Amino acid sequence: MSITLLAPLGSVLALLFALYLARRVLKENEGTDQMKKIADAVRKGASAFLKRQYAGVGIFFAVMFVILLILALTGHLTIFVPFAFVTGGFFSGLSGFIGMKIATAANSRTANASRLSLNSGLKVAFSAGAVVGFVVVGLGLLDISFWYYFLKFWYRDLAATAQVQAITSAMLTFGMGASSMALFARVGGGIFTKAADVGADLVGKVEVGIPEDDPRNPAVIADNVGDNVGDVAGMGADLYESYVGSIISTGALAVAAGLGFSGVSIPMVLAAIGILASIIGSLFVSTKENASQKQLLTSLRRGVWVSAALIAVAAFPLIYFVLGKEHLGLYFAVLCGLIAGILIGFVTEYFTSADYKPTKRLSSTALTGSATVIIGGLSLGMLSTVLPVLIVGASVLISYFVSGGGAAFNMGLYGIGVSAVGMLSTLGITLATDAYGPVADNAGGIAEMAALGDDVRARTDALDSLGNTTAATGKGFAIGSAALTALALIASYIAEVKVIAPNFAFDMNITNPSVLVGLFVGGVLPFMFAALTMESVGRVAQSIVREVRRQFHEIKGLMTGEAEPDYAQCVDICTRSAQKEMMLPALLAVIAPIVVGIILGPNGVIGMLAGATVTGFIMAVMMANAGGAWDNAKKYIESGAHGGKGSDAHKASVVGDTVGDPFKDTSGPSINILIKLLSMVSIVFASVVIAFHIL
Amino acid sequence: MSITLLAPLGSVLALLFALYLARRVLKENEGTDQMKKIADAVRKGASAFLKRQYAGVGIFFAVMFVILLILALTGHLTIFVPFAFVTGGFFSGLSGFIGMKIATAANSRTANASRLSLNSGLKVAFSAGAVVGFVVVGLGLLDISFWYYFLKFWYRDLAATAQVQAITSAMLTFGMGASSMALFARVGGGIFTKAADVGADLVGKVEVGIPEDDPRNPAVIADNVGDNVGDVAGMGADLYESYVGSIISTGALAVAAGLGFSGVSIPMVLAAIGILASIIGSLFVSTKENASQKQLLTSLRRGVWVSAALIAVAAFPLIYFVLGKEHLGLYFAVLCGLIAGILIGFVTEYFTSADYKPTKRLSSTALTGSATVIIGGLSLGMLSTVLPVLIVGASVLISYFVSGGGAAFNMGLYGIGVSAVGMLSTLGITLATDAYGPVADNAGGIAEMAALGDDVRARTDALDSLGNTTAATGKGFAIGSAALTALALIASYIAEVKVIAPNFAFDMNITNPSVLVGLFVGGVLPFMFAALTMESVGRVAQSIVREVRRQFHEIKGLMTGEAEPDYAQCVDICTRSAQKEMMLPALLAVIAPIVVGIILGPNGVIGMLAGATVTGFIMAVMMANAGGAWDNAKKYIESGAHGGKGSDAHKASVVGDTVGDPFKDTSGPSINILIKLLSMVSIVFASVVIAFHIL
Repeated sequence: MSITLLAPLGSVLALLFALYLARRVLKENEGTDQMKKIADAVRKGASAFLKRQYAGVGIFFAVMFVILLILALTGHLTIFVPFAFVTGGFFSGLSGFIGMKIATAANSRTANASRLSLNSGLKVAFSAGAVVGFVVVGLGLLDISFWYYFLKFWYRDLAATAQVQAITSAMLTFGMGASSMALFARVGGGIFTKAADVGADLVGKVEVGIPEDDPRNPAVIADNVGDNVGDVAGMGADLYESYVGSIISTGALAVAAGLGFSGVSIPMVLAAIGILASIIGSLFVSTKENASQKQLLTSLRRGVWVSAALIAVAAFPLIYFVLGKEHLGLYFAVLCGLIAGILIGFVTEYFTSADYKPTKRLSSTALTGSATVIIGGLSLGMLSTVLPVLIVGASVLISYFVSGGGAAFNMGLYGIGVSAVGMLSTLGITLATDAYGPVADNAGGIAEMAALGDDVRARTDALDSLGNTTAATGKGFAIGSAALTALALIASYIAEVKVIAPNFAFDMNITNPSVLVGLFVGGVLPFMFAALTMESVGRVAQSIVREVRRQFHEIKGLMTGEAEPDYAQCVDICTRSAQKEMMLPALLAVIAPIVVGIILGPNGVIGMLAGATVTGFIMAVMMANAGGAWDNAKKYIESGAHGGKGSDAHKASVVGDTVGDPFKDTSGPSINILIKLLSMVSIVFASVVIAFHIL
Repeated sequence: MSITLLAPLGSVLALLFALYLARRVLKENEGTDQMKKIADAVRKGASAFLKRQYAGVGIFFAVMFVILLILALTGHLTIFVPFAFVTGGFFSGLSGFIGMKIATAANSRTANASRLSLNSGLKVAFSAGAVVGFVVVGLGLLDISFWYYFLKFWYRDLAATAQVQAITSAMLTFGMGASSMALFARVGGGIFTKAADVGADLVGKVEVGIPEDDPRNPAVIADNVGDNVGDVAGMGADLYESYVGSIISTGALAVAAGLGFSGVSIPMVLAAIGILASIIGSLFVSTKENASQKQLLTSLRRGVWVSAALIAVAAFPLIYFVLGKEHLGLYFAVLCGLIAGILIGFVTEYFTSADYKPTKRLSSTALTGSATVIIGGLSLGMLSTVLPVLIVGASVLISYFVSGGGAAFNMGLYGIGVSAVGMLSTLGITLATDAYGPVADNAGGIAEMAALGDDVRARTDALDSLGNTTAATGKGFAIGSAALTALALIASYIAEVKVIAPNFAFDMNITNPSVLVGLFVGGVLPFMFAALTMESVGRVAQSIVREVRRQFHEIKGLMTGEAEPDYAQCVDICTRSAQKEMMLPALLAVIAPIVVGIILGPNGVIGMLAGATVTGFIMAVMMANAGGAWDNAKKYIESGAHGGKGSDAHKASVVGDTVGDPFKDTSGPSINILIKLLSMVSIVFASVVIAFHIL
């Protein structure tokens, strides 16, 4: 029996565990009729959004399928690519869909469980988050295993070297489907959630003067729907593609490094080990009543640390027995990835949590008005990029050299890939702590809307506030892994071009004008992308503002609670607008690599990918941390600092938070996917570019 | 007679023309006693700042001189480097000093001339701007010529090839002096000017409710001083170093390309031609009374276009006769640079002027509050980076290939250098239109403070508003030329390493981990730098706020005009704080290349330089354009749109403008210098890095 079989086993295990948790969550009581009603509205809204989104994305996939099919039939691609593309997209979408389903089911149940105790609330919310986490890793590894065994069977007549080459080369391309789907989910969901949030706040809190989550606000359901489709479904699809991307690109690098099937098995089995470790780790998450914020955080962290420690232990025999003593350096690459992921999480927390100096200082800039809050947040965000860059940089260098890159270049690249897989191996549990956030957030909303009383709201607030920190560290993790994965994908692209056109004259010198110009063009893409998505949020928020104003104006008795707002209308506007707005940024990601490739050739593409990875990584960290810090600075003031709620400082901090919303929940996280989708598209269209490029 | 003699001749011509203009400006009447008094206060403040700054910088230069001397005496550098370093810094500082002197002299005279007519006001302000422009190019070319002929004499016993090699190699290093000085001037002046501006506004406009430039505001003189030391002295020092950097790096590339003395003469003579063309162009600047904004702009532009056209004509015979028909492709590189400079100016204007859609649309986002203005301005700034990147990218590619880079790599690099010199050849007049802005701005301030009446203020306002546009296009020009110069410097660095260590194993492949990590580290430097400088502005502004509050509180009769504020105190606080705050960012620029070099080696340095150039260019454009657009959106609202002055939209737009201030006048422009100083430091310390690097 080959050790690679652990991969499908691990994936099945993850899915079974997710099923078990989901059933446990669903067994919980949904609470009062009022709660059921609200939860139902959120559920319907979220389903309506995803249905419409998948329909829209379906057209994109159909068109791409035809294009890829034509390319395959004309010999530019192997025949599996179009099908692999579709399965990648399908599973990524499915991850998001299931995540959304369980999250919307868990919202009211978390609120209800919080009526009992803090610990029960945490259990339900965390279980729901864990479902998302394990569905993502389970489906990801399932898709990979399926294609691996299918292709292995298909190419059974080839010699081993040619066979493994053919397998990884074909698998590499199915990441593009996952990435495309993830981009749509992130961008569409991100626009939806922030437009609804900003729109609801601008009219509700600012103009009409009703509190957040007030059921009289017509956009309040849309806001809750947004949390689910953006932060859960979007995040799930995002990390699905990171996960899959890192595993398949590392597989391709294994072949380039001459490690054959054994090398390919490492990332797959490492992922399976990570699943088992995550399951064990998740059993360690629990807390006692009246737990402090810090204790709650520790209880979540305990799960991640246990998992990481287990992986660190198990990776050693894995590499020793599969690849042999001479490749033991790779074990340190795994450790590098694990540690880098945890370190980036710490840095993120340091810069975004009100427990530490930067966010505290940011909150004091609110005393001199909104302009100083904005300047403070932007410089905090920019400054916070330095350490993650150094951590990733050190991780790349160490992984490269411990894996033997000094002597054998391709071994070093494989080491970088392995460290990315190492970092992502804890994904099951990391994502669980992350997806837990929006569930708790929504539970709070439901507690507020269903008037469950102050003690319940206090508990959900404790859970939610914790969710802000885990969401921030989760984002740091997503960005860090995206950077490593993107680097592995660039290396895979080069390996792929070498396979397609063995005689292509690589000149990847940074002084080659094609590379240099590619670097510039790639560098500007994340800026362009961020600008487009932020503008989209602004535009959609404006239409929500108009609609909410209209309802307050036209629906009599809305303010007094005698009449109900038309929630569905706001959901519908967000849905339709988000669909429309997500197209341009997504097309940018698909078209840029092809146009750059045709003009500048493969060398230019490599420059573009490197440029986009560098500025994309920095921008994503900057936007996520600035946004997180603004949010928490506002919360810190709301907790009583600098005059507390209603003070001028509070108003200024709300401006910061509003600017931070699209930063941290739309543009920033979408950039993660952008940088990987650019690589994926480059890989899939490599043969076209090689055939037609000018320079 | 060698054609290179045109360089010293051109420099003398520029200085004589500047002298002539300066005398003409000084002959103008300073106006009323009140005006003289105000002008005198500004002058004294500016002189005090520069004296203190030069004293502080002097220490830095003394320390660096000793370090360089030790390195020279131990054989790591040629003996001229420490001296060249000092002269570079001295002339750069002198450019700033003279610019400040003439600008502070011209403020009151422009205000006074505006009492007569718009045209007389324009003439005085533009003449003062032209003094700055011609002093910068004159001193720059003088310094270059001096060292060129001195070194030529010194190395007279060497064979021609070795001689030219020794000359350009030594000259290359004196750019570091100019760059260091420029960085201090830009950062120090930028912190001063924006801290005073923000501080004055926060208390004066917002808290106390007195208008801008009101003489009762204790920070009003500091604000005016800031315009002179930041926008004039800082800008002068900045472009001095771009100018010098592009000429000497192109000279070094000429040697690498095997073009010898002829190749070195091209950038020097091109600069001399540019001086003559700029003088002729500047004679075309005049306007009629009651000129519209557009006519005023056209009259300034006419000067630039005439100069550019003359250069375009004269460059052809220059290249034809000096380098011969086979190198005529370089002529198109010159054109490329000229055209790219003008195009970037257009793009800048499009994105920052209220005549066009982006800024108009930005002003309408003020209707929904300050958060939407901030989001709108940031996305406008990000989007505005795309075209400049494409313009610079196209310019690099075209210059490279028309110069024969396809066949001979070094010829292509030389072509890129020549295009940078081409772009900067119009500097005399471009800088004149640019430095004109702060002069007109200050004239407006003096007109307000001296109560010269509405018609005079209307004229100075017209001149000032025009200055905003020319300042924005000037910044675009500064950034574009910085990018090209930085690329030329990177190429020079490589050439320099090859000279120092002919056997060094270059591996500039973008996949080399050292290069890749260097790319990341370089990419993050501009973010870190921007964060540090923005925080400095915030800190200093806070101390100004405290001081202004104190004076309003403690000085009785200040609000009624019975007592005078203590202007000098605010100037002094800004001066001292700016000195202190500029040290850390400047040290970052000096230390980063050395640390990166020691750890990652020359390959890593090249990655770092490329990364810093890419993100630095994009960030600088983003910050300059966002800042300019916020400023003009506010002015557009003040002119009556969206409710006009005092409306909520206006208040929101003021927030945008305040955020934009450090963007466009501190951090953004400093990044230009950062990216070149990094290269300069790398070049000077190349031998140290080669001796001690780890990877």
